[in-house]
Amino acid sequence: MDQHISRQFNADLEELKTQLLEMGGLVEQQTINAVKAITTPDSDLAERVLVTEEEVDARELKLDENCTLVLARRQPAASDLRMVLSVARITRDLERMGDEAHKVAKMAIHLNEHGEAPRGYVELRHIGTIVHQMVISALDAFARFDVDLAISVAQEDKKVDQEYKSAMRELATYMMEDPRSISRVLNIIWALRALERIGDHAANIAEHVIYLVKGLDVRHQSLQEMERQVKEQ
Amino acid sequence: MDQHISRQFNADLEELKTQLLEMGGLVEQQTINAVKAITTPDSDLAERVLVTEEEVDARELKLDENCTLVLARRQPAASDLRMVLSVARITRDLERMGDEAHKVAKMAIHLNEHGEAPRGYVELRHIGTIVHQMVISALDAFARFDVDLAISVAQEDKKVDQEYKSAMRELATYMMEDPRSISRVLNIIWALRALERIGDHAANIAEHVIYLVKGLDVRHQSLQEMERQVKEQ
Repeated sequence: MDQHISRQFNADLEELKTQLLEMGGLVEQQTINAVKAITTPDSDLAERVLVTEEEVDARELKLDENCTLVLARRQPAASDLRMVLSVARITRDLERMGDEAHKVAKMAIHLNEHGEAPRGYVELRHIGTIVHQMVISALDAFARFDVDLAISVAQEDKKVDQEYKSAMRELATYMMEDPRSISRVLNIIWALRALERIGDHAANIAEHVIYLVKGLDVRHQSLQEMERQVKEQ
Repeated sequence: MDQHISRQFNADLEELKTQLLEMGGLVEQQTINAVKAITTPDSDLAERVLVTEEEVDARELKLDENCTLVLARRQPAASDLRMVLSVARITRDLERMGDEAHKVAKMAIHLNEHGEAPRGYVELRHIGTIVHQMVISALDAFARFDVDLAISVAQEDKKVDQEYKSAMRELATYMMEDPRSISRVLNIIWALRALERIGDHAANIAEHVIYLVKGLDVRHQSLQEMERQVKEQ
């Protein structure tokens, strides 16, 4: 009987992992599609991102419900409890990433309706590529319990923050030179901002992976501090 | 013995509630101080918001740890489990609100260093007042299990979204008229955006309160749908 319960419990945990990775795959697609919708440009693709956002939301609710059920029925402890809590936390970050991809897709539609921005596409494509890879790596780190990969995602996030800041400076200068472009450039600025937020959430996921594997809560730490703690453990 | 455990358990839950409300009080102060730092203007106050942000972060980690301990030791079920999960979720929203208040404070410092923006202060004060009240009401709704108050917070959030959009339109127009003001106006825009996000998180807290009291997950629902579900239950 005990063995049966434990087998069932492991199946529950595996199911949570699978559902999380499926949701992650969907959000990863949303990210890349939203960027493509601007750079191609492709309004149909943008519309598809808007519609798919509802599926992301539905998956969040389902996963959260399943986590609560596992907590209530199985009363997990130690590393099993960490797994359930990590899935719940990562779910929330994925949902937020979906929200941000939704914002990018909306900007794609604005840009198609009100005219392309004269600048910012190079930066958008560049930051979009880094952030998309961060999302993939963060999910991989979770799937493989890979702490080194998780740390590399946190490192990439610093790079994104730098690129984002330099793009902002450049676009502010451009708007001063060509004030008629302001509302169109603002659309690109909002899209860049949303991508930078997706990067933040990927870095959050990386932190949850470190918590899951090492039992360390490394939130709000500098990169150096995080690396030191993980190495020492 | 059982009675002792149950008493201890109730004390644990009360302690979580108290800690959450303390963290909430701190974040509420951060919100109002960050807005004041811009509107007064007062750079010292802005610096104090930046420093206090570390305490907000520390409280998040502590509260999360305590929630995990209660889950591991007490293995709560039903409404007790909902309480622990709600505290964990609200904690995360409070930490994000703290982050956004930190962004507003940074903009206060930028505006003091690089010159005031010629517009946007009226909007900032106005939206700041609504959002600050939302934070207070969301925490009150949690403290008193008050679903009606929670719904009113969600209603206020719609108002903030409208005010925010109209302020954005106005400021974009202003930048076109006076391009030299662009970088200063952008600082106000970032501050407004951060306030709008604080409003979103207050609305999230309201949703967690509805989950806590009614057991209903009303995320991603329209206001009408939320009100209908709550009434029917």
